[in-house]
Amino acid sequence: MTRVYINEVASRDGFQNEAVFIPTDEKISFINTLSESGYAKIEVTSFTSPKAIPALKDAEVVMHEIHRNPDVVYTALVPNLRGAERAYDSQVQEFNLVMSLSETHNRANLRMRREGSFEQLKTVIDTYQDKVSINVSFSTVFGCPMEGDIAVSDVLAWIEKFSHIGVNKFTLCDTTGMAYPKQVQDLFAQVKKHFPETDITAHFHNTRGMALANTMAALDEGIIRFDASLGGLGGCPYAPGASGNVSTEDLVHMLALNGYDTGVNLSKICALAQQLPRLIQHDISSQVSKAGPRSRLYPAPDYIQTI
Amino acid sequence: MTRVYINEVASRDGFQNEAVFIPTDEKISFINTLSESGYAKIEVTSFTSPKAIPALKDAEVVMHEIHRNPDVVYTALVPNLRGAERAYDSQVQEFNLVMSLSETHNRANLRMRREGSFEQLKTVIDTYQDKVSINVSFSTVFGCPMEGDIAVSDVLAWIEKFSHIGVNKFTLCDTTGMAYPKQVQDLFAQVKKHFPETDITAHFHNTRGMALANTMAALDEGIIRFDASLGGLGGCPYAPGASGNVSTEDLVHMLALNGYDTGVNLSKICALAQQLPRLIQHDISSQVSKAGPRSRLYPAPDYIQTI
Repeated sequence: MTRVYINEVASRDGFQNEAVFIPTDEKISFINTLSESGYAKIEVTSFTSPKAIPALKDAEVVMHEIHRNPDVVYTALVPNLRGAERAYDSQVQEFNLVMSLSETHNRANLRMRREGSFEQLKTVIDTYQDKVSINVSFSTVFGCPMEGDIAVSDVLAWIEKFSHIGVNKFTLCDTTGMAYPKQVQDLFAQVKKHFPETDITAHFHNTRGMALANTMAALDEGIIRFDASLGGLGGCPYAPGASGNVSTEDLVHMLALNGYDTGVNLSKICALAQQLPRLIQHDISSQVSKAGPRSRLYPAPDYIQTI
Repeated sequence: MTRVYINEVASRDGFQNEAVFIPTDEKISFINTLSESGYAKIEVTSFTSPKAIPALKDAEVVMHEIHRNPDVVYTALVPNLRGAERAYDSQVQEFNLVMSLSETHNRANLRMRREGSFEQLKTVIDTYQDKVSINVSFSTVFGCPMEGDIAVSDVLAWIEKFSHIGVNKFTLCDTTGMAYPKQVQDLFAQVKKHFPETDITAHFHNTRGMALANTMAALDEGIIRFDASLGGLGGCPYAPGASGNVSTEDLVHMLALNGYDTGVNLSKICALAQQLPRLIQHDISSQVSKAGPRSRLYPAPDYIQTI
């Protein structure tokens, strides 16, 4: 069995998109259960300004109070040097730095140009790369909802640019669910060819239903690291009513059936996913926590004895 | 571009699973719009006993009143000789005969053993195969919710058995969403190897989120015929809250992006899917009719001009 590494992003990418504030003790309890469920990595929270993202204003408390499992890498989103200081003080083990590969999306979301983001992240990298692991997540790699397609040459150039300053872990994000299998295969083939020694994580959204098909396409190109969000939490402001991130339980279930070992305990995370509607006060879009795994069998009705 | 043929099953597999009765004139209008949307085939209704499936008790009226497009094959489910007589009188162009490959499921659902189903369907085939096209759909091919796995050798044996009495069109159905990509690839490879000249249609459910991933796997093995249900209508009594059939709009959208030509007009069927919640009185599980196609772009916010 091929080992596949899952990074759970529900408590960051998921909770930050929810209308209700998840109480701090509920977050801690949620992450503690994740820690005992076999994940390789957990993106716990975000060290953005509490004013910008009030949903995660309790980042320090959460990082401090959770029980850490030595087998899990605890990561957090770090937007800038101020966030990096806070994250470092909170013993975050990996900084997840984010910028968009779409100039328009970067200006709209991060309120600066891509070169400005690069300079800002470079300061964090220069200051912290000897002290902590660093991953760079690129948004809108598979398409921007304002610009459309992002050129493959652009993706390669931005990986190259960060590689030059010492980064060797990247997450390629399909921020608004625009990726499709053929594109995924073509892009990852290019990335693996040009950066064979670099750790690449795929981050898919299920906005148009293709997240699991895209995962199979990525696996075909040798990608073995995936972000996923319990219950499919996450979502995208451009797609009201549609699904969010790829659901961890649906992903882990499919991977196991296809012979991949994620280490994640499916029944444990399904039980946790079933708690989510209470926490977020609405239904979730994932399937396996509702339908049960493929292996769940039902008794035959009694009347068939006479047939 | 490879041509792929879509059979729309919402008005049969979908409507028969709904709690509300869809008014006959609404059904006719719905099917008339489907007829102008580029489908290869439409499964209009079912000629089962009106007592058994009251949702489709208007089969004759619907078949009689719809406007037929000469480019579309109009098919209907036919359970037995009585149903075949009714369907033939209604100028159904293709009979879709159904049995389960799981002995338990066949006894539970059709209230007879598989051999009994075979004998019943054989009577229909012997009587009508010179007059009308015949397709046999096998349920639970990728797993039975009571028995579990169905042996590949069993699938091949049942295709063989019907081939001997003249059938050369088969639909392999994942009735309760148990199929997974590796299994799909392995099974269709065997089926194509043993029956290279037979028309094979894949019928997937999205119960566990894998329908589009399974479609990609089937395409890899040369399958070019797919059943799909607008809005993902259909569902499965063993998976309350989970998705139903693969959604036609999500399927057509993915196929087009990957270079397959279905002939189906995506914007037309998305507009029709958006009417479904009014007809069935609940939300639908499909994505693209909510999120829009990948090609839908949004204007950038004005404030980015100053960035």
